[in-house]
Amino acid sequence: MNTNEKALQMHEQWNGKLETIAKSKVNTREDLAIAYTPGVAEPCKVIAEDKEKAYTYTWKSNTVAVVSDGSAVLGLGNIGPYAAMPVMEGKCVLFKEFGDVNAVPICLDTQDTEEIITAVKNIAPGFGGINLEDISAPRCFEIETRLKEMLDIPVFHDDQHGTAIVVLAGIINALRITGKKKEECRVVMNGAGAAGVAIAKLLLKYGFKYVTLCNRKGIISKESEGLNWMQKEMAEITNLEHKTGNLADALVGADIFIGVSAPNTVTAEMVKTMNSDSILFALANPVPEIMPDIAKAAGARIVGTGRSDFPNQVNNVIAFPGIFRGALEGRAPQITDEMKLAAATALAGLVSDSELNEDFIIPEAFDPRVADVVAKAVKDHI
Amino acid sequence: MNTNEKALQMHEQWNGKLETIAKSKVNTREDLAIAYTPGVAEPCKVIAEDKEKAYTYTWKSNTVAVVSDGSAVLGLGNIGPYAAMPVMEGKCVLFKEFGDVNAVPICLDTQDTEEIITAVKNIAPGFGGINLEDISAPRCFEIETRLKEMLDIPVFHDDQHGTAIVVLAGIINALRITGKKKEECRVVMNGAGAAGVAIAKLLLKYGFKYVTLCNRKGIISKESEGLNWMQKEMAEITNLEHKTGNLADALVGADIFIGVSAPNTVTAEMVKTMNSDSILFALANPVPEIMPDIAKAAGARIVGTGRSDFPNQVNNVIAFPGIFRGALEGRAPQITDEMKLAAATALAGLVSDSELNEDFIIPEAFDPRVADVVAKAVKDHI
Repeated sequence: MNTNEKALQMHEQWNGKLETIAKSKVNTREDLAIAYTPGVAEPCKVIAEDKEKAYTYTWKSNTVAVVSDGSAVLGLGNIGPYAAMPVMEGKCVLFKEFGDVNAVPICLDTQDTEEIITAVKNIAPGFGGINLEDISAPRCFEIETRLKEMLDIPVFHDDQHGTAIVVLAGIINALRITGKKKEECRVVMNGAGAAGVAIAKLLLKYGFKYVTLCNRKGIISKESEGLNWMQKEMAEITNLEHKTGNLADALVGADIFIGVSAPNTVTAEMVKTMNSDSILFALANPVPEIMPDIAKAAGARIVGTGRSDFPNQVNNVIAFPGIFRGALEGRAPQITDEMKLAAATALAGLVSDSELNEDFIIPEAFDPRVADVVAKAVKDHI
Repeated sequence: MNTNEKALQMHEQWNGKLETIAKSKVNTREDLAIAYTPGVAEPCKVIAEDKEKAYTYTWKSNTVAVVSDGSAVLGLGNIGPYAAMPVMEGKCVLFKEFGDVNAVPICLDTQDTEEIITAVKNIAPGFGGINLEDISAPRCFEIETRLKEMLDIPVFHDDQHGTAIVVLAGIINALRITGKKKEECRVVMNGAGAAGVAIAKLLLKYGFKYVTLCNRKGIISKESEGLNWMQKEMAEITNLEHKTGNLADALVGADIFIGVSAPNTVTAEMVKTMNSDSILFALANPVPEIMPDIAKAAGARIVGTGRSDFPNQVNNVIAFPGIFRGALEGRAPQITDEMKLAAATALAGLVSDSELNEDFIIPEAFDPRVADVVAKAVKDHI
């Protein structure tokens, strides 16, 4: 039985990968009087006086809503809220298993931006954070930005920032190996959706200067047509060298390639035109922009993918559980760029000098130190 | 330490009475590949083809949202969504502990009827049922009615129907003791909010003919002023004898009193004017409409309250967990009046002839048969 068949069978057997359980057992009348009426009125009254006390007396202190509208699920596209549920449940499982954070899947029966914003605003009181997931671009940018303004709890679109944090961690370590300097590196990205935009922004924040974004039509510049509002914003802060042309043109003389696009969009010939010691993150899943062996044969020094069966997997699971755990523990009202940079730096630092090599630039998902180190980095920057 | 102090202390210690846990443990790369990417895409694809399969592959099959806007919480009133959380978490604990149903507290940051309806509609895909809780009348009637029309999963306002089911169960058994006939009984109710309206409706459905509703201004009739739309509807189907006056007038010659109103609104003198073998449910909490010893001394034969320290406690916990478990197991699209009547009858039937007496007309909350019997009654009427 292959992985897909096994997955289907196990999902049927689980009949839901998640469950709620009571920390307050109710075996006697006294238990009932304390966990429910009449005793429960006491914490209610205290919270009514001071809503901050919700963090003391309810699960808000350690619970995240994983919210999706099912519009951009994995590589499956717009499959809607019902079909998105297994992914959101899976995400909640990872929150708990890797970060010890409670998480509830909320799949919304709307893809209207205003309705999504209103729904999330309205369910927020019972949660300590909102993890947005698999919402298509450019709506995801507006939804996240507006919710961050409205809410006093962290709102974090993991497809954007989780990916950006892990890619940056990998790049930090790739620079350790190659000795390249961030101020001088030419970075070319293919894909200007949720992940692409967020990665580009975080790299700029980290100190990269030369970042060029491409989409299906080629290099994005101020002159490009058909850009959405976010891509237009990106055109103002990227491609400082005013390059034009297609992806192949962009890659000539580049140091780093980051693909969040489509299978086989990068060829060996393109890699050969990159600078020496080139670094490639080919994150299209399951088939990357270029297979690692082809890239290496064409001169790449370091290659990462989204797959667990190749070295250097970019896997958000090393970021989001710790990010939220740190934010919740520290009661951060937002997850800031400084926290993201600190998380990426901390993740990179988990790979010691003696362990660091071309095939090991990103900590393992099952490294037990990961969530603690990320949570601490976040808390230290609140 | 008294119950209230203990409750506050325990709520702080619990820091949330509920948690989510993973049924699918993730200890290896293979686990990850099956519970999350890439394996999770398989159930997603199946559900995208047939959304009913969400019941096979996700927790929708056994999970309820407990939704409140915090507008009418316990006896505390409109304390808002943050302060309502301990109650909703408690309700979720009872769902799990008594019915083995997963439940998630959703406290809404709005008290606007349209926004509440839209929010519940939008979060519905991930849940198998909606338990509305502590939403003030008459908004609760419109919210429930409209959601029942919109959604294909059960929507159940427990303050209405849970209470009505348990009261009816008690009345069925009170009739067994007294030999009174439902068609002949005069029923007087005080309180025409969520619970009062629902109890009156269910009694009529069960076969009672003479039901008279009172509110603070006295007997409700077609001529009454200041009624909300639901009370106007009730005026059409209750008070067939066209009584007027106050609660004391209504109780003259009555067989059954049901109070969902305020402390000490019924006096010994009023009870003395009722028919012999009178039956009283004085459900105001914590101080009932009349204390049981006073009612008994004035001639009442059977008295029930909402309190656990008196006999015949009307406690919704013997209804809602089994109601939802039955509805979820049988995939009922709605919880119908027939199911409610069947549940009440089944609950009454749990008290055997040999056990039945004036002080034992309602099964105990901790009777392990309760949820099973209620669930079966519901399933048998889908």
